[in-house]
Amino acid sequence: MANPVVPARGMRDILPADQKKRDRILAIIRDTYSRAGFLEIETPAVEPLSRLLSDQGGDNEKMIFEILRRGLSPDESVIVKDATDLGLRYDLTVPLTRFYATHAAQLPRVFRALQTGPVWRAERPQKGRYRQFRQCDIDIIGDGSTSAEVDLLVTTLSAFQNLGMAADVMVLLNDRRILRDLLEASGIGADSQDATLITLDKRDKIGDKGVKVELLEKGLCTAPQAEELLANVDALRSLTSFDSAATTAGEVQLAGGQTISLYELPEIVAAARALRPDATIRFDPTLVRGMGYYTGPIFEVAHRERDFSVAGGGRYDKVVGKWLGRDVPACGFSIGFERIVDLVNLPDEDSSRVALLYKPGQDPLGVFQLRDELLQAGYSVGLVVPPRRLGGQFFDSLVEDGYSHSLDGRRAEASLEDLRQLQG
Amino acid sequence: MANPVVPARGMRDILPADQKKRDRILAIIRDTYSRAGFLEIETPAVEPLSRLLSDQGGDNEKMIFEILRRGLSPDESVIVKDATDLGLRYDLTVPLTRFYATHAAQLPRVFRALQTGPVWRAERPQKGRYRQFRQCDIDIIGDGSTSAEVDLLVTTLSAFQNLGMAADVMVLLNDRRILRDLLEASGIGADSQDATLITLDKRDKIGDKGVKVELLEKGLCTAPQAEELLANVDALRSLTSFDSAATTAGEVQLAGGQTISLYELPEIVAAARALRPDATIRFDPTLVRGMGYYTGPIFEVAHRERDFSVAGGGRYDKVVGKWLGRDVPACGFSIGFERIVDLVNLPDEDSSRVALLYKPGQDPLGVFQLRDELLQAGYSVGLVVPPRRLGGQFFDSLVEDGYSHSLDGRRAEASLEDLRQLQG
Repeated sequence: MANPVVPARGMRDILPADQKKRDRILAIIRDTYSRAGFLEIETPAVEPLSRLLSDQGGDNEKMIFEILRRGLSPDESVIVKDATDLGLRYDLTVPLTRFYATHAAQLPRVFRALQTGPVWRAERPQKGRYRQFRQCDIDIIGDGSTSAEVDLLVTTLSAFQNLGMAADVMVLLNDRRILRDLLEASGIGADSQDATLITLDKRDKIGDKGVKVELLEKGLCTAPQAEELLANVDALRSLTSFDSAATTAGEVQLAGGQTISLYELPEIVAAARALRPDATIRFDPTLVRGMGYYTGPIFEVAHRERDFSVAGGGRYDKVVGKWLGRDVPACGFSIGFERIVDLVNLPDEDSSRVALLYKPGQDPLGVFQLRDELLQAGYSVGLVVPPRRLGGQFFDSLVEDGYSHSLDGRRAEASLEDLRQLQG
Repeated sequence: MANPVVPARGMRDILPADQKKRDRILAIIRDTYSRAGFLEIETPAVEPLSRLLSDQGGDNEKMIFEILRRGLSPDESVIVKDATDLGLRYDLTVPLTRFYATHAAQLPRVFRALQTGPVWRAERPQKGRYRQFRQCDIDIIGDGSTSAEVDLLVTTLSAFQNLGMAADVMVLLNDRRILRDLLEASGIGADSQDATLITLDKRDKIGDKGVKVELLEKGLCTAPQAEELLANVDALRSLTSFDSAATTAGEVQLAGGQTISLYELPEIVAAARALRPDATIRFDPTLVRGMGYYTGPIFEVAHRERDFSVAGGGRYDKVVGKWLGRDVPACGFSIGFERIVDLVNLPDEDSSRVALLYKPGQDPLGVFQLRDELLQAGYSVGLVVPPRRLGGQFFDSLVEDGYSHSLDGRRAEASLEDLRQLQG
């Protein structure tokens, strides 16, 4: 019989074993970031809808869970668009920029922020994607130099290093300005550029043909322009290793003869490579990133065994200004926490964890006194109701659940001398 | 000029210094609970409204943030009560019981759960109360014996002990069955009892007179009944120390001559006192707790310096059955995280934290190489943009921000030999 009592559609529960693993991974990421100088903050899950719908979030703005205004009476009739005033955040960046605008006076001149909270998107539910998921973001606000990009890249690489994933990941870089120059060079005007990028971003999924069809369907350019765009992207692909003369010169010649700048990418890559010589860092001219707010360099971390990115970010110099009234340079990098959980293999913890056997309803005094003594002696304790017969299978299950010792607390005279080491 | 860019009404941001303190407190609570055998889980922030509105949550059900159904078109007209299908959880208990019903087959026979997530209530905003706040809950599902209550009491007391608050807190106990017997004895029938308890719970705030007025206004009882009820409560007050002959006998005589049982309270108190001899544990016949779902013992932790409780809980044997179709005994205790944050004084961390001075825009290589070396040497690092002159005031501010050392990374030749110990 299927159990009808399940989490809301597209949402999920985290069971104890998963939670334990997630918690260890999160602790490594937070420790890496905070030791490197990023300051942890928290913003509410909820922001006014007007802020979430301010054209920063690309397609994510269509996936906001909207919250009903309070104080409406149940039988009253409302127009949908007037019924809501708040929404669940779809990322951590829009709330961070709002946070910065609210508290700028109390924050360091260059503010390094760390956030690790949940976000919500009403996506069509599909395997492995959830409507509530956690992001781990670092952002640097107030530094317009390439220091910011370099810091974010090397610190994110340190996190993957500390998670034991360094050999499996690769950093991909691009720049929104390069993309715009590319669109200009392909004859696509300013009005169509944002929408064109959103389509180009799907190239991995829908292929060249799909991109072309969508561009034409949306009336964003002509067929020859679409073809030139794709040819120009291919021309840039030769630079992926960043070792050519073009990157040294800082500019590159397209198929049609036009020259476009690589902006600061060569400089950023050189510094990141010097600091993380073992890392793979590459230029990827097809990298777009969905969010509408990026203004400069954009980056992603790809994983060898997956066709989706495990981290992404970029520079967004115009968002803080929306709230603060003056522009403040900003740049961020976000690890897709849910995407890496299955990819991380952590070594066993060498813990001293005791399975304390007891029977519900037995005099609680004895068993909790034993637990106090075990805690005092430095052990962690799990309370376990054992089966009637304590066979090998039962003790094997204790080992599997991470216990190093067992202690039968069902007899009134049981003491720490009865502690039994389990064979792993 | 007031800054108009603020969090949504009744919500708030957590700045770095507060976040650090909160994080340390949360770590102590989680460590205490998980070492004592409670298994951490997570449920989504969102549950179907029908579950949240199932008469479990007392007044909290009126404060649910409701979420608009997806797929409505902006200009369409809807009836308010049909417009929403999900809601933000108002506590962690209802979602936990739903979680248990979903996953019972995979959980231990007696399941000790730990949760530390945020909950949301659309309360009228007031000083010190927020519409999003964190709770730290432990629950025991599947144990109908007093072991569960004793475990929750002593483990919660351990958490307060580890937070350095042991001397300031006091446990108050009551039992919903005692309250019901009291209402019966005062002539208040079954239909009016839930509502009467909700009113009685406000006694601290509105006084005897207020309670009486509200009971009459709501038509819950007659004036003589209200007076008898309050007199009976006062009769029970003499038992607060739990040392009288009545508690040994397990029953007590009311003003009108009727005898009512104290159920398992004397037994629970005796075991908890034996395990935590330094703790203050008292009977409080006016303790009601707002939630509708309690069925047996209920408890609160009061703080010497505050007129609100800092933790609360009780037994709720009928909630899991709502989802699972069969009753499973359950009992929980929740620390009001937000309420204790200001009450905790943690000792300084003896950290080795270096303020690494740099200038935005300087060649990033040198400063990030220095940071890597500091991290390698076991230091934590904060990146600080210093003022033009490095005076005593500046170094004092570094000490205040928790730095133990500084290192000026603005010169290309700076090295770890230039590390400077700060005077606290």
